[in-house]
Amino acid sequence: MLLTPPSHLNQKPELSPALRTLIARAERALADVLPPEDLPPIELHRAMRYAALGSGKRLRPLLTYAAGHALGYDGPELDAPACAVELIHAYSLVHDDLPAMDDDALRRGRPTCHIVFGEAMAILAGDALQALAFEILARGNTLRGMQMLSVLGHACGAEGMAGGQALDLTATGRVLSLAELEHMHACKTGALIRAAVRLGALTAHADARAQEALDRYASAAGLAFQIRDDILDVEGESSVIGKTVGKDAAAGKPTFPSIIGLQASHTRLAELTDMALDAIAPFGEAGVWLEELARYVAHRIR
Amino acid sequence: MLLTPPSHLNQKPELSPALRTLIARAERALADVLPPEDLPPIELHRAMRYAALGSGKRLRPLLTYAAGHALGYDGPELDAPACAVELIHAYSLVHDDLPAMDDDALRRGRPTCHIVFGEAMAILAGDALQALAFEILARGNTLRGMQMLSVLGHACGAEGMAGGQALDLTATGRVLSLAELEHMHACKTGALIRAAVRLGALTAHADARAQEALDRYASAAGLAFQIRDDILDVEGESSVIGKTVGKDAAAGKPTFPSIIGLQASHTRLAELTDMALDAIAPFGEAGVWLEELARYVAHRIR
Repeated sequence: MLLTPPSHLNQKPELSPALRTLIARAERALADVLPPEDLPPIELHRAMRYAALGSGKRLRPLLTYAAGHALGYDGPELDAPACAVELIHAYSLVHDDLPAMDDDALRRGRPTCHIVFGEAMAILAGDALQALAFEILARGNTLRGMQMLSVLGHACGAEGMAGGQALDLTATGRVLSLAELEHMHACKTGALIRAAVRLGALTAHADARAQEALDRYASAAGLAFQIRDDILDVEGESSVIGKTVGKDAAAGKPTFPSIIGLQASHTRLAELTDMALDAIAPFGEAGVWLEELARYVAHRIR
Repeated sequence: MLLTPPSHLNQKPELSPALRTLIARAERALADVLPPEDLPPIELHRAMRYAALGSGKRLRPLLTYAAGHALGYDGPELDAPACAVELIHAYSLVHDDLPAMDDDALRRGRPTCHIVFGEAMAILAGDALQALAFEILARGNTLRGMQMLSVLGHACGAEGMAGGQALDLTATGRVLSLAELEHMHACKTGALIRAAVRLGALTAHADARAQEALDRYASAAGLAFQIRDDILDVEGESSVIGKTVGKDAAAGKPTFPSIIGLQASHTRLAELTDMALDAIAPFGEAGVWLEELARYVAHRIR
């Protein structure tokens, strides 16, 4: 008799019950904030929900909740920023997967948005998800919300995520230095991860010193996340990570293993994890979720 | 000796010097707010500037300035919302022109963004323009800015522009009723035009009554704009309107002429123009720019 399911059937085997509860909270909040499928424009709403719900890691909303928790706040005001960062992430994946970009047919183990809904609808769904992220932050109608919008807008734009993706496009086939690669990722994935933490900190009224510590944590964890991604592109299994392995290397994309080697990539990942953990040491027990997330980022298998 | 250039060489022959001065003001503000071409990511910044600068009509920023003027305000606080609505408009054109969407190679008489920069960069440039629009509104850090962000987010998203485009996609080849067609356009182009006016009104501290009058003006003018667009698709000249004539009809897109006929489209356009002018009558002389824009919308040749 099987009392517990085998671990490979468990969707998030690596995370504690506390964080899994937060994932469920984020997913409930997302489901509430996304437009319903039975209201027109139905196809657009379906594409938006398909892209944002489903089986994501929810790392960014987890970081928002965990940053709030580190400062003693777990209340409902964290839900809007947690949703906003995940909606931005979801939109970026939809656009990233398009034929003109990475041309991916598989994401999180499912057909990508444009495979299911067509390219035109996928472009619009991404656009509408971005608009929704900003709109829900604006609903709060507080000056703190305004600061969050400023942080998120900057993190998404030409100096942040979109800029990093543009650097990535022009980097394909070129040899980058380690510094150039790290800068590209600081924009491409790092900016939104830093914003996720910053939004949680702003919601929890962080003072300048706490903010600075959390920024250091997020910068280190964001880069660690990307190095782990590159390592998984070499060592992972497609069936586990939910996307094609070896794709970055085959596409001529610069990666940490291709520039500094696999062993040095593992070493750099460990260093960054230590930096992230050092940064949040002052929060003591309240930083436990951030700590778990930093370890998860370094050891995740997908 | 030629003292004045022939009118067909004049970029905006239909507008008064006052509005042409406002166009120059909007274009200066846009040039300032867009990231510079000599800073990385250079290709992305070039694509953003290419899409947002150049020879647009600038109708949306003009509406923002004109709404402010109707309420007695012409100050510098109008520049950010004027830029924001134009950046959103520019991003929507870039994505609309993509091969997966309308597949247009010509826009405002120039090659479209993806023709010049490639599809991937055009998608990113659109994404970054949207983020920039929200970011510049957030910079003001006032509660009024927050209201504007809420209005703009709603106007861009699934219940506004992106939703209207999704309805447009699913409408191609279908027979729509006049009510369905008007609803589609109220979302697709109307929502942003209403937002342009609303943002000007918010900046100028409009009271509820003024706001309501301006909303009526914007709804009528927005629909009139679209009817004129459809009429130009039948009657216009490609060399003047800067895009391919007859394209909507050939693509099986529902248009006002195709549903109610060309003559009835002219009649409806005239009715809507009267409604727009009635709505702003209470503003007297201060409404002169809004009045000129309503007439321009109805009579423009591109």
